[in-house]
Amino acid sequence: MEPVFLGAVTILGLLEQAYFSLQVIYARRKYSVSPPSITGPPEFNRVYRAQANCSEYFPLFITALWTSGVFFNEGLSSMCGVLYLYGRLQYFWGYASSPQGRLDPLYFCAKVLWTLIGCSTIGVFQSFFKIYLHMDLLQITATALGFY
Amino acid sequence: MEPVFLGAVTILGLLEQAYFSLQVIYARRKYSVSPPSITGPPEFNRVYRAQANCSEYFPLFITALWTSGVFFNEGLSSMCGVLYLYGRLQYFWGYASSPQGRLDPLYFCAKVLWTLIGCSTIGVFQSFFKIYLHMDLLQITATALGFY
Amino acid sequence: MEPVFLGAVTILGLLEQAYFSLQVIYARRKYSVSPPSITGPPEFNRVYRAQANCSEYFPLFITALWTSGVFFNEGLSSMCGVLYLYGRLQYFWGYASSPQGRLDPLYFCAKVLWTLIGCSTIGVFQSFFKIYLHMDLLQITATALGFY
Repeated sequence: MEPVFLGAVTILGLLEQAYFSLQVIYARRKYSVSPPSITGPPEFNRVYRAQANCSEYFPLFITALWTSGVFFNEGLSSMCGVLYLYGRLQYFWGYASSPQGRLDPLYFCAKVLWTLIGCSTIGVFQSFFKIYLHMDLLQITATALGFY
Repeated sequence: MEPVFLGAVTILGLLEQAYFSLQVIYARRKYSVSPPSITGPPEFNRVYRAQANCSEYFPLFITALWTSGVFFNEGLSSMCGVLYLYGRLQYFWGYASSPQGRLDPLYFCAKVLWTLIGCSTIGVFQSFFKIYLHMDLLQITATALGFY
Repeated sequence: MEPVFLGAVTILGLLEQAYFSLQVIYARRKYSVSPPSITGPPEFNRVYRAQANCSEYFPLFITALWTSGVFFNEGLSSMCGVLYLYGRLQYFWGYASSPQGRLDPLYFCAKVLWTLIGCSTIGVFQSFFKIYLHMDLLQITATALGFY
């Protein structure tokens, strides 16, 4: 069964990156910064750096999203994925208007990314115990907590 | 059954990135631009930016390639993948000779990437309808078009 | 059965990238280089470039790790993965102290990456022959070498 929600979030992520790339192209035209130059007025630099930062984090995001989705839980990971992409949009718009404006969404995105990395870690541990030690951590925890 | 064609295109992509990285190393030597500096004569800047742009797009390409290949169709996606990598080679060589020379291959690559994103979207929708609504969009479309 | 070792190496890779990003943030504070600026004293530039280079290679590494792990061998690929991440840590620390200090770990990482690409290639060929030509290359090689 294909992980459709992870697939959907992945496509949203690709579309968002495409949107950021287009914004850089528009900013290049607006502020007359021709490639291969990557510096210009502060307004251009901020848009350029916002896109560069999002691009740099895109592989980390996709990797954490899928590791968490495959090893831990698809639904939860996909929801985190949507939150992350929403945060990145706020980050991009915030950074484009001022260096200060990027901070809050950046911290938000970092928290979501750490959540995905945390879920990945739990998921990988769980799979390891199940496959190699034939122990179901989820059930053991539930028993310990008195659910069974 | 492993997706061998997606795997093969992925390896080609890795080899192409290795080739671009080597070109930057050669350009650094030729134009005496020592790390951590990333600017030098325009000839160097173009090679550097060409490689940087290809690197930035590599994760987007790999993500779109596999999403399209897994959710939509492996053969078609792999063919798009080969076209994309061919376009990137033209882009790199074009950019290395002049900023103008990068444009046609860049537009070509963008079109191929949009095709992959489009196929991914169709594929994810199809899987969603099949898994959660038990509807086969492919068959419905074929019926609607009078093929059955 | 989930590839837990590939998953574990992937998480280690994400944590390492997080560590590098934090180092850049600390260096920005220490040398008073505020975003969107990306240049400052040589000490800052080296830390920044070290992180940028690791980020640029992260998608190549993850792609090669999983292609090699899925198509060739999970254990061997995961071990290469750990070596690569260790090399990147040495690279980062080396580069932070001097441009010269980055070279040895960089060559080491390049060798490990080439090993992963080589294993991926063997794995994809093997899968292709098995699936489409119904030939088991591993067994043929073993027979040719007189093991059977």
